[in-house]
Amino acid sequence: MDDNLIFGRNAVAELLKSGHSVNRILIAEGSRDGSIQKIFALAKTAGVVVEFASRDKLDKLCGGRHQGVAAYAAAADYSTLEEVLELAESKHEPPFIILLDELEDPQNFGAILRTAEAVGVHGVIIPKRRSVQLNATVFKTSAGAAQYVKVVQVTNVAQTLKRLREVGLKVVGSDMNAELDFKQADLTGGLVLIIGNEGKGMRRLTRESCDELIRIPMVGKINSLNASVAGALLMYEIFFQRRYKQ
Amino acid sequence: MDDNLIFGRNAVAELLKSGHSVNRILIAEGSRDGSIQKIFALAKTAGVVVEFASRDKLDKLCGGRHQGVAAYAAAADYSTLEEVLELAESKHEPPFIILLDELEDPQNFGAILRTAEAVGVHGVIIPKRRSVQLNATVFKTSAGAAQYVKVVQVTNVAQTLKRLREVGLKVVGSDMNAELDFKQADLTGGLVLIIGNEGKGMRRLTRESCDELIRIPMVGKINSLNASVAGALLMYEIFFQRRYKQ
Repeated sequence: MDDNLIFGRNAVAELLKSGHSVNRILIAEGSRDGSIQKIFALAKTAGVVVEFASRDKLDKLCGGRHQGVAAYAAAADYSTLEEVLELAESKHEPPFIILLDELEDPQNFGAILRTAEAVGVHGVIIPKRRSVQLNATVFKTSAGAAQYVKVVQVTNVAQTLKRLREVGLKVVGSDMNAELDFKQADLTGGLVLIIGNEGKGMRRLTRESCDELIRIPMVGKINSLNASVAGALLMYEIFFQRRYKQ
Repeated sequence: MDDNLIFGRNAVAELLKSGHSVNRILIAEGSRDGSIQKIFALAKTAGVVVEFASRDKLDKLCGGRHQGVAAYAAAADYSTLEEVLELAESKHEPPFIILLDELEDPQNFGAILRTAEAVGVHGVIIPKRRSVQLNATVFKTSAGAAQYVKVVQVTNVAQTLKRLREVGLKVVGSDMNAELDFKQADLTGGLVLIIGNEGKGMRRLTRESCDELIRIPMVGKINSLNASVAGALLMYEIFFQRRYKQ
């Protein structure tokens, strides 16, 4: 599958609405119901070329449920850390940043971006190496949120965290062995939340950069949560503390 | 892929530990590191036959990242509603039940079971028709939690909810247009939480069976969350209210 091929009606509609650069749209021959008409209209407004293709061709191209629509998007846009900090400043909000420490699964990355967008995160930082990058699966799982959230690639996570602490941000990581329940933690103010690798959690160096380690309580036998679920619980707690505690 | 084929080291280890009936285990020739030794030991304790297979054969069988281990599990065990209510009673807890209203995606089902297990949910109800069922993808995504959480199939959702209301449970559904923020809702006491379809949400009849509709606040442009993320936020809120409010 082409890395920049986005498919599915919601994903393509969100891509067109986002203002992200789109090279062309493919629509299955014979499709003309309401949501396809909407995609036609969005493509026209955005000045994007629409071509027709057989369902067979779309099946082969997408290798998944395309619902009769696919789009060739331009390569992913990454932002800089400065742009993220400026965004927070322009909104008069303390920075709210997520750092994904060697996350592997594009579906987790997409789900995290979707939640991040919902709670007003200013930017998501990923390492350039040994990490999932922005691709079509991420875009699709994010339901289009990948177009709205600033994503920053960095070469050195420890240095990035050092710099963010210097500008006054608190670095918070989650660890199943931490003593502090996340509900009891003070998560107000400028903050970087670290979400670790699906299997291995945070790396030692990253853990040592944390000002605070917090734990999500669990009472079952498995004792671990999906990375995007754990991330969402922590992001929403930060969101609520910003809303109600300040 | 065989529906009862489970693969991956954690998933197979959890399957063996759970006491679920396993027909046989396949291990890649030449594998003998620590976690494989552990699976050998677990299989021996459980009295399960272990066979060796080439990596090629495992690749073909599993069609995914098997890490050198696969297991043929017996067909899924479903529970009855009575067993779920009895479990709650035996733990002296008000029943905490999830109902999935025509959920489609096995990865969402698996992630929901994983969170449900972590917060002590007594049972998860799914409709027999037009719903994802317990299968290998669900098992794998649940990280083994599917073996520990009681899952009940029902033919008529509305009748099931009526019966649960008769035994005193409150029926709570989430709806993005509801007025009540879930943080402000009283979610203590015996309760059924409904999680709707990924695209369409709850059906009309199900919505009309709800005693309370609650909303997860969002401040972005997309205005929807992944079903397993939304489910996790609500399950953890119920978990915390049970813990701290009573």
